[in-house]
Amino acid sequence: MKSTLLSRRDLDFLLYEWLRVDELTKRQRFAEHSRDTFDGVLDLSEELAEKYFAPHNKKSDANEPTFDGTRVVVIDEVREAIEAFAQADLIGASMDEALGGAQLPVCVAQAAFAYVSAANVSTSGYLMLTIANANLIAKFGDDEQIDSFVKPMLAGRFSGTMALSETQAGSSLADIVTRAEPRDDGSYRLFGSKMWISGAEHELTDNIVNLVLAKIPGGPAGTKGISLFVVPKYLVGADGSIGERNDVTLAGLNHKMGQRGISNTVLNFGEGVHTPNGEAGAVGYLVGEPHRGLMYMFHMMNEARLAVGMGAVSLGYTGYLKSVEYARIRAQGRLVKDSSTPQVPIVDHADVKRMLLAQKSYVEGGLALGLYCTKLIDLQRTAESAEEAEHVTDLLDILVPVAKSWPSQWCLEANSLAIQVHGGYGYTREYDVEQHYRDNRLNPIHEGTHGIQSLDLLGRKVTQRDGASIAELGRAVAATIAQGTAAGGEAAELAALLDSSWQRLVEVTTAMFATGDAEATLANSAIYLEAFGHVVMAWIWLEQFIVAENADEDFSSDFYSGKRQAARYFFRYELPRTAPQLDLLEALDRTTLEMRSAWF
Amino acid sequence: MKSTLLSRRDLDFLLYEWLRVDELTKRQRFAEHSRDTFDGVLDLSEELAEKYFAPHNKKSDANEPTFDGTRVVVIDEVREAIEAFAQADLIGASMDEALGGAQLPVCVAQAAFAYVSAANVSTSGYLMLTIANANLIAKFGDDEQIDSFVKPMLAGRFSGTMALSETQAGSSLADIVTRAEPRDDGSYRLFGSKMWISGAEHELTDNIVNLVLAKIPGGPAGTKGISLFVVPKYLVGADGSIGERNDVTLAGLNHKMGQRGISNTVLNFGEGVHTPNGEAGAVGYLVGEPHRGLMYMFHMMNEARLAVGMGAVSLGYTGYLKSVEYARIRAQGRLVKDSSTPQVPIVDHADVKRMLLAQKSYVEGGLALGLYCTKLIDLQRTAESAEEAEHVTDLLDILVPVAKSWPSQWCLEANSLAIQVHGGYGYTREYDVEQHYRDNRLNPIHEGTHGIQSLDLLGRKVTQRDGASIAELGRAVAATIAQGTAAGGEAAELAALLDSSWQRLVEVTTAMFATGDAEATLANSAIYLEAFGHVVMAWIWLEQFIVAENADEDFSSDFYSGKRQAARYFFRYELPRTAPQLDLLEALDRTTLEMRSAWF
Repeated sequence: MKSTLLSRRDLDFLLYEWLRVDELTKRQRFAEHSRDTFDGVLDLSEELAEKYFAPHNKKSDANEPTFDGTRVVVIDEVREAIEAFAQADLIGASMDEALGGAQLPVCVAQAAFAYVSAANVSTSGYLMLTIANANLIAKFGDDEQIDSFVKPMLAGRFSGTMALSETQAGSSLADIVTRAEPRDDGSYRLFGSKMWISGAEHELTDNIVNLVLAKIPGGPAGTKGISLFVVPKYLVGADGSIGERNDVTLAGLNHKMGQRGISNTVLNFGEGVHTPNGEAGAVGYLVGEPHRGLMYMFHMMNEARLAVGMGAVSLGYTGYLKSVEYARIRAQGRLVKDSSTPQVPIVDHADVKRMLLAQKSYVEGGLALGLYCTKLIDLQRTAESAEEAEHVTDLLDILVPVAKSWPSQWCLEANSLAIQVHGGYGYTREYDVEQHYRDNRLNPIHEGTHGIQSLDLLGRKVTQRDGASIAELGRAVAATIAQGTAAGGEAAELAALLDSSWQRLVEVTTAMFATGDAEATLANSAIYLEAFGHVVMAWIWLEQFIVAENADEDFSSDFYSGKRQAARYFFRYELPRTAPQLDLLEALDRTTLEMRSAWF
Repeated sequence: MKSTLLSRRDLDFLLYEWLRVDELTKRQRFAEHSRDTFDGVLDLSEELAEKYFAPHNKKSDANEPTFDGTRVVVIDEVREAIEAFAQADLIGASMDEALGGAQLPVCVAQAAFAYVSAANVSTSGYLMLTIANANLIAKFGDDEQIDSFVKPMLAGRFSGTMALSETQAGSSLADIVTRAEPRDDGSYRLFGSKMWISGAEHELTDNIVNLVLAKIPGGPAGTKGISLFVVPKYLVGADGSIGERNDVTLAGLNHKMGQRGISNTVLNFGEGVHTPNGEAGAVGYLVGEPHRGLMYMFHMMNEARLAVGMGAVSLGYTGYLKSVEYARIRAQGRLVKDSSTPQVPIVDHADVKRMLLAQKSYVEGGLALGLYCTKLIDLQRTAESAEEAEHVTDLLDILVPVAKSWPSQWCLEANSLAIQVHGGYGYTREYDVEQHYRDNRLNPIHEGTHGIQSLDLLGRKVTQRDGASIAELGRAVAATIAQGTAAGGEAAELAALLDSSWQRLVEVTTAMFATGDAEATLANSAIYLEAFGHVVMAWIWLEQFIVAENADEDFSSDFYSGKRQAARYFFRYELPRTAPQLDLLEALDRTTLEMRSAWF
């Protein structure tokens, strides 16, 4: 039976036919690998996803973590899945061999991870946070921190969290007040409270490694005074043994609409419930240097944001495949008005095909963009010259807000369409798609809301380094257009459409900044992000179209025909949405700015 | 404290300043009423909503009906709310006095009902179905049926359901197979199974009146052979006493994403669990004549579809008000880059204002359209000439698919934006908005999916009676444009935009039908519905703008300023979306038609 998690055929197309990730093995970091090892990890992840993650997806939704006053109880299947993933050595898939990682390209590791995330976004969330946490300490922590925390996380014995937000400071990290007081032995004592901490306070692993942003008293104000600390649930002895309970305690569990299987908590640090080593405060260890915490976080932010985008894609993808399967077997209505003829499968109705095509264009497009960007991470990490690194960074920087927000918006829309294809059944918990929709609704919020991504794009990435990022993207787009034009025929037609959209985007961008009216320029940043995203996706779809056009003997196969049709759909139904958006932006519309609170 | 269910100020504006519903009292049917009685019923409904419906909205979401093997258990608060509503004589608000109704205009009754629906869409769902059921029997049933079933429903002693769909026939009623066998005494015995029956098999009322579509053996094939039956849960004696259990039994409960407080069931008829009067089959009573069941249903469909649209509006509206309230008190971030200044309420951020303005334009626009259409029902019901009735029917017919689907789409989007304004909090069940979003997701599905509405609009309403419906709408739109043009200034500018959009819509519609290619014309009916809907809403917003412009002394008040700004928002941000949609339609794009099942 074909998997309804992801399409392996599509993954193979994107990774090998399009991105040619097997060529990464020419780089020293990946020299030990080959397409075989890449395929192996994809196979393995799919197998684990089907065997350990998918089966309890509904169960963990219906049985969210509960606090019995002492312990947070999580259903057993979550631990089993985490252990299976760890035992398969997949936690460290993209990490250095020296640390015990498999040193795979990030794009291959992320493609593999998409299987578990499609199967169970909550359970895989514990793993995603652990991986992000381990990456951060591995990059900026010292050897002792790596031994004490990173290695047990790679082995699946410890898990990780990211504790950034506070109740009064969600999107505004400058306003955090958790403080870290230095002690003579070089450690710190933390006092404060953190909000929205996923994957905290459970007993799935022997220990939990909380990475916490806090301020060292006397440091600079605002974001410049933020430092990063490791604050484990249990202290760890020099020999790696689990020691005393640290003063990190649960203030409460949040109860979410979706992603219910992963604990989401308010954590108190140094509230006095425990007194590790007989002293007040939660013991924390500074990562790197003081006051550089936010910089460290930002350094990992590209990867974290891509991971969120990929999570949104994976949920959209599995919903798409399930709605295709449903539409093929569900008979309803007729194409001719004769009730004596049998009903036809709903996949034959034009409107259902529209809903499936839209989903296909969103989820395959989103996956393509995600993999493209994660490959850029690999190229950045293994750049063979400063110049290459610079080009790759420029391109990556401007694509990240899109790769985070676009799938969060459109793969959520895909889930809504998957429900619609299922009709009333899709609205019930007896089917899977309503959960995907609920689960996916988180993605436009966490790891920087849609609004934050739009300010990052328009207020920062577009102008940074004198516009180097958008120029780099322009060159990449132009190269694709040139390729399409050279190919002639339909590819050239699509290339012309992309060319005109891209030129219009650049023209509008230039016009906005030329006014010097920063307030009006940024007022509609969210609209800019949407228009920008759709133009970028048209480029990604033209890329795919060209590869599908060049498929020799299989040109007329279902797979390539579908790819081409989805590309056509995107250019005909989706890209034109950007025209009125760009007109609005060019006019520097002040409707929102002029609105007043009292008028609502 | 201001209500966060609906804005009474807005209701007053729409009902009195715009629609002038007080003038309906000049008509004989409403002669006993006055603005005072209208206001009274609005006050009363708001009071009941706050006191009996809102408080258990979360509780009934968390405690959906369960089947213990014998009874379906629903939390007590549901019964209390239903009883309070019935005791206030609101079930029969718009029904004839002769039946015990209050004979209020439907638009006033629906405005009042929007309060309970905003407060608790599930509990109010039992009432909505009872009202629809009672209306249908009152219209087409005989005196005995009215005495036995309608009057107890108005008193709140009985409740009603609508049993149309079957598992193999959701949107395709031609394919139902439930059969009704005639008996010598004039009654029927029903055998079959019905799906998606809301409000069935509970013990909230003494009896449940199921209205069931079934086929009498030997009748015509397809929809022409469908008849309508009353099939009560318990037989009713001539004296109104509750008699023997009928053979209507619960086959199962569906478990939905939202609207969890109202039971949704699979019902079996004549399965043999009970043998009323010692015989097999569920006892049913034919309503009206044989084979006219679908016609009767269609007769009530306008009202039912408007009710769904109004339900979507009410959920959107309460989410909007709650997100405005939240945005005013939640401090986060700054307008200037100086972390030593205090954080500002998020309502001051342009992007948050955009999200609130969008919601305002959707929910106030949706409410306006809903009330406009329900007033048409009143005008239709009290038409003073055949000509008036014809004009009103023409207009109503073409607006109903919009008034059902537009709020189902955009007030759901409003709920998504309400979540986004709340940030992470909005994603938790500790706040209200996530439930509204889940509850509202049903509305694009039931009572005719979005796709079904679009086929109704483009395949039926646009062409019916030689285009009389669209011509009637065109006259109404033209009148508003003329008014705006005459007013000059900004109203004239908006009128010109509407004029050009309307002309373009008509031009595209004409071009599509001129090709004679029905398949391609209907292939993108869903896109047509969306474009059509946005043009209609621009008209509705221009209507409101003109009234707000004419407010004399209060012209500069917050309320009128807000109305004008929301209208501007709609014309600048929303209406332009239609341009690429209409281009696509004009091109009779065949992308979806040419897609093949195997290509997905």
